[in-house]
Amino acid sequence: MKNTTPVRWNNCLVQDNFLFPRMKTAHETTIPSSVKRCYETGRIEAFKHNWHEGMPNKPHIYWDSDVAKVIEGMAFDLVLNPDSGREKQMEEIISLIVSSQLEDGYLNSYFAHIAPDERWKIIHDNHELYCAGHLIEAAVAHFQATGRRNFLDAMCRYADYISTVFGREEGKLRAYPGHQELELALCKLAQATGREKYWQLAAYFVDERGTEPNYFREVEGMRPEGKGYHSKPFSVDYAQAHKPVREQSEAVGHAVRAGYLYSGMADIARKYNDTALLAACEKLFDDIVEKKMYITGSIGSELVGESFGKPYALPNATAYAETCAAISLAMFADRMLNITGDMKYADVVEKAIYNGILSGISLSGDRYFYRNMLETNPRTTYVTQRQLWFNTSCCPTNFCRFLPQLGSYLWSESEEGVRLNIPAQSTFSSNGIRISVKGNYPYDGKIVITFESAGEFTFACRIPGWCRSYQVKLNGSVERINGNAPEWRRAWQEGDCIELELDMPIELVYSSTDVIEDIGKAAICRGPLVYAVEVCDVNEELWRYVIDRTSLHLTPVNGLPGGTYGISGRALREKKRGDSLYTTVAPEYEEVTFTAVPYSLWQNRGPSTMQVWMRY
Amino acid sequence: MKNTTPVRWNNCLVQDNFLFPRMKTAHETTIPSSVKRCYETGRIEAFKHNWHEGMPNKPHIYWDSDVAKVIEGMAFDLVLNPDSGREKQMEEIISLIVSSQLEDGYLNSYFAHIAPDERWKIIHDNHELYCAGHLIEAAVAHFQATGRRNFLDAMCRYADYISTVFGREEGKLRAYPGHQELELALCKLAQATGREKYWQLAAYFVDERGTEPNYFREVEGMRPEGKGYHSKPFSVDYAQAHKPVREQSEAVGHAVRAGYLYSGMADIARKYNDTALLAACEKLFDDIVEKKMYITGSIGSELVGESFGKPYALPNATAYAETCAAISLAMFADRMLNITGDMKYADVVEKAIYNGILSGISLSGDRYFYRNMLETNPRTTYVTQRQLWFNTSCCPTNFCRFLPQLGSYLWSESEEGVRLNIPAQSTFSSNGIRISVKGNYPYDGKIVITFESAGEFTFACRIPGWCRSYQVKLNGSVERINGNAPEWRRAWQEGDCIELELDMPIELVYSSTDVIEDIGKAAICRGPLVYAVEVCDVNEELWRYVIDRTSLHLTPVNGLPGGTYGISGRALREKKRGDSLYTTVAPEYEEVTFTAVPYSLWQNRGPSTMQVWMRY
Repeated sequence: MKNTTPVRWNNCLVQDNFLFPRMKTAHETTIPSSVKRCYETGRIEAFKHNWHEGMPNKPHIYWDSDVAKVIEGMAFDLVLNPDSGREKQMEEIISLIVSSQLEDGYLNSYFAHIAPDERWKIIHDNHELYCAGHLIEAAVAHFQATGRRNFLDAMCRYADYISTVFGREEGKLRAYPGHQELELALCKLAQATGREKYWQLAAYFVDERGTEPNYFREVEGMRPEGKGYHSKPFSVDYAQAHKPVREQSEAVGHAVRAGYLYSGMADIARKYNDTALLAACEKLFDDIVEKKMYITGSIGSELVGESFGKPYALPNATAYAETCAAISLAMFADRMLNITGDMKYADVVEKAIYNGILSGISLSGDRYFYRNMLETNPRTTYVTQRQLWFNTSCCPTNFCRFLPQLGSYLWSESEEGVRLNIPAQSTFSSNGIRISVKGNYPYDGKIVITFESAGEFTFACRIPGWCRSYQVKLNGSVERINGNAPEWRRAWQEGDCIELELDMPIELVYSSTDVIEDIGKAAICRGPLVYAVEVCDVNEELWRYVIDRTSLHLTPVNGLPGGTYGISGRALREKKRGDSLYTTVAPEYEEVTFTAVPYSLWQNRGPSTMQVWMRY
Repeated sequence: MKNTTPVRWNNCLVQDNFLFPRMKTAHETTIPSSVKRCYETGRIEAFKHNWHEGMPNKPHIYWDSDVAKVIEGMAFDLVLNPDSGREKQMEEIISLIVSSQLEDGYLNSYFAHIAPDERWKIIHDNHELYCAGHLIEAAVAHFQATGRRNFLDAMCRYADYISTVFGREEGKLRAYPGHQELELALCKLAQATGREKYWQLAAYFVDERGTEPNYFREVEGMRPEGKGYHSKPFSVDYAQAHKPVREQSEAVGHAVRAGYLYSGMADIARKYNDTALLAACEKLFDDIVEKKMYITGSIGSELVGESFGKPYALPNATAYAETCAAISLAMFADRMLNITGDMKYADVVEKAIYNGILSGISLSGDRYFYRNMLETNPRTTYVTQRQLWFNTSCCPTNFCRFLPQLGSYLWSESEEGVRLNIPAQSTFSSNGIRISVKGNYPYDGKIVITFESAGEFTFACRIPGWCRSYQVKLNGSVERINGNAPEWRRAWQEGDCIELELDMPIELVYSSTDVIEDIGKAAICRGPLVYAVEVCDVNEELWRYVIDRTSLHLTPVNGLPGGTYGISGRALREKKRGDSLYTTVAPEYEEVTFTAVPYSLWQNRGPSTMQVWMRY
């Protein structure tokens, strides 16, 4: 099935024990605590345009995006939890945002008030169009959730104004976002409003990017260095503006910008049936997945620049692997999945969600990783504990909006029928179709899919890429399956039942020999889950362990949610040697056991260190 | 033998095939090419104080130190090669330097002319006292080499002036060098001139450092970030000013500053028989050698800050390991060796010279490493080829002065007698004593020491720390040896002969289990040499090799100087796997051979990559 759409977020009720608890925590903790932080830090007050020197909480250029993502999350969550009593608060914030819009449509709490002379002056770095994009996404979510148009209309005015500033016409700036995001937001706005002009504006931003004369060329190297991990001299490839996007085939530069851009490119490619643009998306995706993606679905290995590294440069301890980058990859992959129906994209969506995204937030829902390293150790000087908040809080606020939407990643639909992409326990209801999925995914590969309504349509499901052996039964009879997206077109009866038995052995996964950092090491995986050995489960230095590949078995884990499976096994542990830094005495080993836990759940039992890739 | 002094550089004629070729190259290439660079880049012109806006080659705050080190090297080299015809050039430069001295004694080509208002204003970061130190060292060398006092007298005036600016007396700045070096230079000046006041000024700078109220505390964090590897916000521990030096027991901060400071501390401890200060030196040395030194004798593992890392933080690919830091460690260890007579210090001197220092310069003598990594690979974005010069050219110019002095590291002397610290082929002549050392060290442990003059004195030699089995013969009779610095007091006859047979097996060396990066790996060593596998000798990716510990043997190496021994052996090489970034297909291996070369000689056969620590 091609040309599907993700199911509307509230048409899939997630009911499993792995994803749903995170959605529940998002509702109970992540969203309200983020709203609170937005108030406390002045992010919401900023829309009052009343800050002056001497006051605390001076507004910042990307604060609007944080508030927008929280609003977006509140809107999605409101539909899932209609009795939360937060609607009033959400509407108040939205009213404040809308009231801050200037006469001409411009809306930015920083540049409208703090630095009005800089409006549209430092486009490569000032995040104005990025903030606009997130505000638009929030407005669309608010409209979808409530049917109210006040925010949407304001954002249409903003988009209309932006279209008077940017474009190829005489007198307009032939620029495009320095931090991409607006492209995909405009596509959403176009879909929500049915207005073609927003598609065209999005397409302009996509198409204009990287063309000659290059709008950003003259600001290359202009960014002051060293203000943080992301700060290196601005370069056109850092912002994926080094060549026209259709000519890009290698993922380079800032990984979050890349993921959002590629998502927007996919939206435009789909809208205009633009095969050249889609081909670029496919090439970029393949480049990421074949050369630049961590086994956890995280991307952006380079600390400096928060960017993609060279092919196969995937250091574990110094990984950047920003939470937002993994989210942006899931967004991109989900779009490609729905355009092409190719299950390889669903594999990446799943990999990212179950590993590199959920690792970014604590089970408590209020502590976050910016960087999702694959190995932490006591020698490093980096922060390796989840933090309550960040000055640059894109990651926490991304969870506010991503978690309530999780259901939409599980199912796709089209006029033809529906497809189960990720077989987590859930109930799908849309267009009169109602299907339930039961099972203990991702810990168990046995899935029971029950049709709870009658009707003729195509049902498809995914055989995950990690699964090499499976059986599928339709109403008790074994089905012969070709490919990894079996589909059945029939008049379904209430009570029809498809059973998936996805063999889910414990497996060791090896990196390509091109990945220097993983040579001689293996990652323990089972189903969609990557496992990590956490120091609290072994009480000795992780790097001294050499695991025995033949001894791995499932085990319960203390201190993690009931139902969590760990993986235990035997290992040789290098004995601690004496005080000498260097010695000719050959290492000795002792036989020990070890336990690994799902990577996304690490560091939920106090400060800890962790290692994904283990010597074997 | 304690309280020895290094032999005067020209009283040891180095005649071996390992060190001497480097000294020869220094004479033929390193020094003249550095002089040329100093002219070309304006470093010498700067002393004319004629630069103005619009001219090329704007002077820089630490240029004087480069010229000073080149002059120091020219002076030492002049004595070794009296017919080089460079004396006139040296004197011309010195005349220019001296002529640039201001009325009050101040001499700095940058601050006297470019930024006179900043004199002594940014002491923590502006390198004025550092430049002064190097100028003083150069002047002492010039005086020692030629007997001429013009430069020395000028530098005495500068030191006298400095003593009117800095000190504990009312109205003086209670400051001390931000980049240490002046301390040890003043000790040299004191020795050369016999003036006690320079000892006192040096002692002041050593003692005042890190006392409260802390002179540098208020500038903490003030340095603009990100202007290069060394630039992070200034902190007192970065400059070893976090506590009084006597209370320091852990090596922290910028490694070159540390090494120069510790050298000055050792000089002062010796001069004043200051046991507390010596104890601090011993603790700092032990902290380095037990927790923070690469197997190559390099120090300073942290890229950002060019500084010591946490204990056992010794990354190989991202090592900073600056050439100058290894030189400063050799300088510090050599002082400790001569004070204490403890051979552990000589072991470190030797380790640094034969590995982490000489790796910093090409065999051609005109290409340099700033960073001496222990592993380079094609994924990195760092510079991993030796460069012709650097804007910050401390490393090249350090070779200019270090290489001609190599002989002084080989022998120590005192009123009691002499000690052979490093048994490289050489001839010692001092105070009527003449001793020759013959052998093919470091490739062969058989050393013949012949007394070429008669006289009663103590002769001592070192049994290297790497040597666990040896035989010593005196005039053909096997001697019973206790300890690692056997000594003989006797009336030596011309023709007396000591034969050392130091067993020099190929050995694998393992790091402490505390070093994460070296776990499961071993370094191939023989005698004082650490070996590295270079990609040009194996033609496949180094990280795929797993060496067979039982198969190592000596082998000649193509393309390196005659007499160079490589080490070959069998290895298993992981077969290249297909295109998939991650796979469950277990690695397969093929049997191959490999060759390692002395680490200090790597990358002398074209651009290359290299690995010291190999999986076994």
